[in-house]
Amino acid sequence: MTERRLGGVGVTPLSGVGDVVWYAPDAELDDPPAPEDVDAEAETTRFEEARTTAREELQLERERTAERVGEDEAAVFDAHVQFLDDPQITDGVEEKIAEGLPAEHAVQRTFDRFVEQFEGMEGRMAERADDLRDVRDRLVRVLAGGERVNLAELPEGSVVFAERLTPSDTAQLDPERVAGFVTVTGGRTSHAAIFARSLALPAVVGVGEELYDVEDGETVAVDGTDGVVVVDPDESTREAAVDGDDVTVRHDPVSTADGVEIEVAGNVGTRADLAPAADRGADGIGLFRTEFLFLDRQSPPDEQEQYEAYVEALETFPEGRVVVRTLDVGGDKPIDYLDLPEEENPFLGERGIRRSLSPDADLFETQLRALLRAAAHDTGGDLAVMLPLVSTVDEVVAARERLELFADDLEREGIEYAVPEFGVMVETPAAAFMAADLAEEVDFFSIGTNDLAQYVMAAERGNERVADLGDYRQPAVLRAIRATVDAAEGTDVWVGMCGEMAGDPELTELLLGLGLDELSMSAVTVPQVKQAVTETNTEAARKLADSALSASTKDEVEQVLTQNTQS
Amino acid sequence: MTERRLGGVGVTPLSGVGDVVWYAPDAELDDPPAPEDVDAEAETTRFEEARTTAREELQLERERTAERVGEDEAAVFDAHVQFLDDPQITDGVEEKIAEGLPAEHAVQRTFDRFVEQFEGMEGRMAERADDLRDVRDRLVRVLAGGERVNLAELPEGSVVFAERLTPSDTAQLDPERVAGFVTVTGGRTSHAAIFARSLALPAVVGVGEELYDVEDGETVAVDGTDGVVVVDPDESTREAAVDGDDVTVRHDPVSTADGVEIEVAGNVGTRADLAPAADRGADGIGLFRTEFLFLDRQSPPDEQEQYEAYVEALETFPEGRVVVRTLDVGGDKPIDYLDLPEEENPFLGERGIRRSLSPDADLFETQLRALLRAAAHDTGGDLAVMLPLVSTVDEVVAARERLELFADDLEREGIEYAVPEFGVMVETPAAAFMAADLAEEVDFFSIGTNDLAQYVMAAERGNERVADLGDYRQPAVLRAIRATVDAAEGTDVWVGMCGEMAGDPELTELLLGLGLDELSMSAVTVPQVKQAVTETNTEAARKLADSALSASTKDEVEQVLTQNTQS
Repeated sequence: MTERRLGGVGVTPLSGVGDVVWYAPDAELDDPPAPEDVDAEAETTRFEEARTTAREELQLERERTAERVGEDEAAVFDAHVQFLDDPQITDGVEEKIAEGLPAEHAVQRTFDRFVEQFEGMEGRMAERADDLRDVRDRLVRVLAGGERVNLAELPEGSVVFAERLTPSDTAQLDPERVAGFVTVTGGRTSHAAIFARSLALPAVVGVGEELYDVEDGETVAVDGTDGVVVVDPDESTREAAVDGDDVTVRHDPVSTADGVEIEVAGNVGTRADLAPAADRGADGIGLFRTEFLFLDRQSPPDEQEQYEAYVEALETFPEGRVVVRTLDVGGDKPIDYLDLPEEENPFLGERGIRRSLSPDADLFETQLRALLRAAAHDTGGDLAVMLPLVSTVDEVVAARERLELFADDLEREGIEYAVPEFGVMVETPAAAFMAADLAEEVDFFSIGTNDLAQYVMAAERGNERVADLGDYRQPAVLRAIRATVDAAEGTDVWVGMCGEMAGDPELTELLLGLGLDELSMSAVTVPQVKQAVTETNTEAARKLADSALSASTKDEVEQVLTQNTQS
Repeated sequence: MTERRLGGVGVTPLSGVGDVVWYAPDAELDDPPAPEDVDAEAETTRFEEARTTAREELQLERERTAERVGEDEAAVFDAHVQFLDDPQITDGVEEKIAEGLPAEHAVQRTFDRFVEQFEGMEGRMAERADDLRDVRDRLVRVLAGGERVNLAELPEGSVVFAERLTPSDTAQLDPERVAGFVTVTGGRTSHAAIFARSLALPAVVGVGEELYDVEDGETVAVDGTDGVVVVDPDESTREAAVDGDDVTVRHDPVSTADGVEIEVAGNVGTRADLAPAADRGADGIGLFRTEFLFLDRQSPPDEQEQYEAYVEALETFPEGRVVVRTLDVGGDKPIDYLDLPEEENPFLGERGIRRSLSPDADLFETQLRALLRAAAHDTGGDLAVMLPLVSTVDEVVAARERLELFADDLEREGIEYAVPEFGVMVETPAAAFMAADLAEEVDFFSIGTNDLAQYVMAAERGNERVADLGDYRQPAVLRAIRATVDAAEGTDVWVGMCGEMAGDPELTELLLGLGLDELSMSAVTVPQVKQAVTETNTEAARKLADSALSASTKDEVEQVLTQNTQS
């Protein structure tokens, strides 16, 4: 048998070999029989039984997730159970059965109608469509007598194949047992891709329908660098794939060739990201997104729960720094217990620090108290607090006043605390223009290149029509970065970067040339970036940065980078 | 009888006196009679007759508007007729009548249901709600036997009172006969307010329900500076109001006290704005928005129609410069014949020059050809073309190449043309960061402070939750302006400003200190800004600007401005 190769989008620069486990392949329903051949009463009973089974499955998965990942992530299953019990939906299904459809078809059509309704909506409601699809597929599978592949108990060395992977799927998955995964749909920013990067798994997405030709149990090599899946790989492909990630993982801090130490840290979006970041050699956490503590649950986490999460991060990096970003939500995120406004342009709305200073003041207090307490937890490492979406000096002063106020409260209450390092994200053009003034108020900046590029270029990163404009290789974005670094020069303020740009090893030299002190990224590219740091000479990097800054167009920036690589 | 004073929001610094004409006061419907007392057949006939009358009224108003304002503006009435004939709506009304409601109640409830649906939608669909309300109110009035106040034939010296004024209302209005207007609802950015500024009419909006206590025919003084309406004004109030606008209208160009000539121009959004701009002494047009040529019609205007519009502007300012901005639309504007995408963040989407270079390339060609031809029209004045939402040098180069290409086409076709001045709006942070590079490609910059503030601060101007952040008095916005002016220094590029900021006479000295060469604004404040220019000393203005630029917060900027006024 000879190799077969399928192409897709590689989302992590890693390779792996393993055996295919198809996860919940979409069971295509046959055409329904004639209505007179359907026993409505029997079908209604089948539907009721399927709901019971599905509910039991969900409860089991919920418990497993709560144990393995956390109570917060487990809460998504509660939403699924709610859909299972929604009278509008169950009545709809029963009506369709009464009209003469078998249970699985009745489920499919009824759910599809609701999916369509949710998809037509914007923002948070649209995301409900994914949950509905999950519940629909579960019911159809149960009705078809199928067993769900248990993602938590896969054989070791499995390569998971799926149409797509949802957050509830990936929450189940035991990364220790998975050699990689491959999906039919999805692109670089799909949930599956982000998940692969933060867990450092080889992965290819968006392969298309031909993936369905690969069968359960076949051996595949997954090449996440070039986006290739090789079925029945021969010996040489196999060896190359196993050795694919040949970059040394460095667990110690690294320096440039001329001896300037650069902190290379990890971005963390869930508890499950902590271990991979440490495994890949991150010096600490440069961006601890705290949204996951607040999502998919009925009420916000209390002070103690947050304290424990921050301490867990500190303990994972006993000698490193953990930079915790305060809650960054706005009109485009689904948090039911927050009164998030519907906004016409949510990315230009009330989000990040803007909410923390007023509508979410209570949440902010709880979070700052938890952070003050965690900062006193002695691991040898350091805790830092970072404010998102800062655009004025006023916001920073107000936030610091609150931090001091709550420290006084803890002092009075006799609770142990320490004042953490205090910094801001530079992700609005305003923050770049005001960087010299902001530098007087903070200990550090961390440049968030995704949002910064979006606002500098006035081009939404999720909007494909303007994606090329919103690229961080645009010279305007480089100049905003330089303006920020320049403003901090000669002060004690260190400048890091935690956007996607920081994780691109091809840009490491440029970023060091622009003067960054720290780079923080998804776990997967930490070794590559550390490698790139060791190969960088500061003087040459500065010249490279100057050339890039004098470019007038993105093409010219790319030419500068290409010429540098070739020379 | 003594004076009564009502407070609201003044939207133009002008005063006037006149007699109240209530426009379409909202007829409150009484409770409907019991269903058994309603003769459904008779009510259905009344509804049919009311539709006929409404259709006749609409046709008459359509003709009058086409004649007076233009075919484009007239097209809004076609949309109204469509709603009148929409079977979903008429069926809905007839159903309600069949259920036992009189025609007016049936109309009200049916339309309200659709209004609510449209209001729940985003962007362009939401604007349909206003059209539906117009049609609803018209039908209810006709059913109640009311005559519509004819806005086109008001007695001279009328002060129009209304709950609100829609675009179709203001299109009817003959500004020569109106002494001012006052509305129950609305704020500084309501349609009525914008209309008042561009036509330079005294106006107060947002007075609230107590306005309903003022009766048709009463005499009122409207003070648009302080936002006061005086009912039954005594002699002294009357005189003060008539003399309220005591700023000299200067029809010649003005210079600062130390002799630097500054161009003070008008912003124009419809044909009707041209005359008021000239009347108030604008030197030319600094921003000719061309969207009005494209809105409310079934197909885009052809080359000849556009040519005539641009020539009309040139002829209004025979010695001045007319800066025409190319079509600036995107996902938030209702233009049926354009395939405008629904975008989650339309202000960060495909709009302005981004559309002109690809999806709207045909429209762009027609517009550039019309502009090339109009530039050859010899009035002694100059035509300039300006690109909206520029964020890269590539866009400017591509647009200029097209201009040259179309000039070659006209040459070959033997059609007279001239190459207009060529410039860009600076309204994205990217344009400010790239200003030095852009300066090599253009003849001028015009800073659009509304969008620039929005993007620099990442705060949507229409979103009340972040309105304070998006203010152009934020120091970050001032620094972006200065970066733009600095980049043009030492080149031949002149720098203007056409956002709202330019029309605020209290900021004129600051803006001249920042180095602007031209200011363009709504007609109404042209005399005040010209006055402020003559009072400015360049050296003092520069010092003022330096102080404002070194401020860290908006409050500090305001303090700098206040201290300057007091000293």
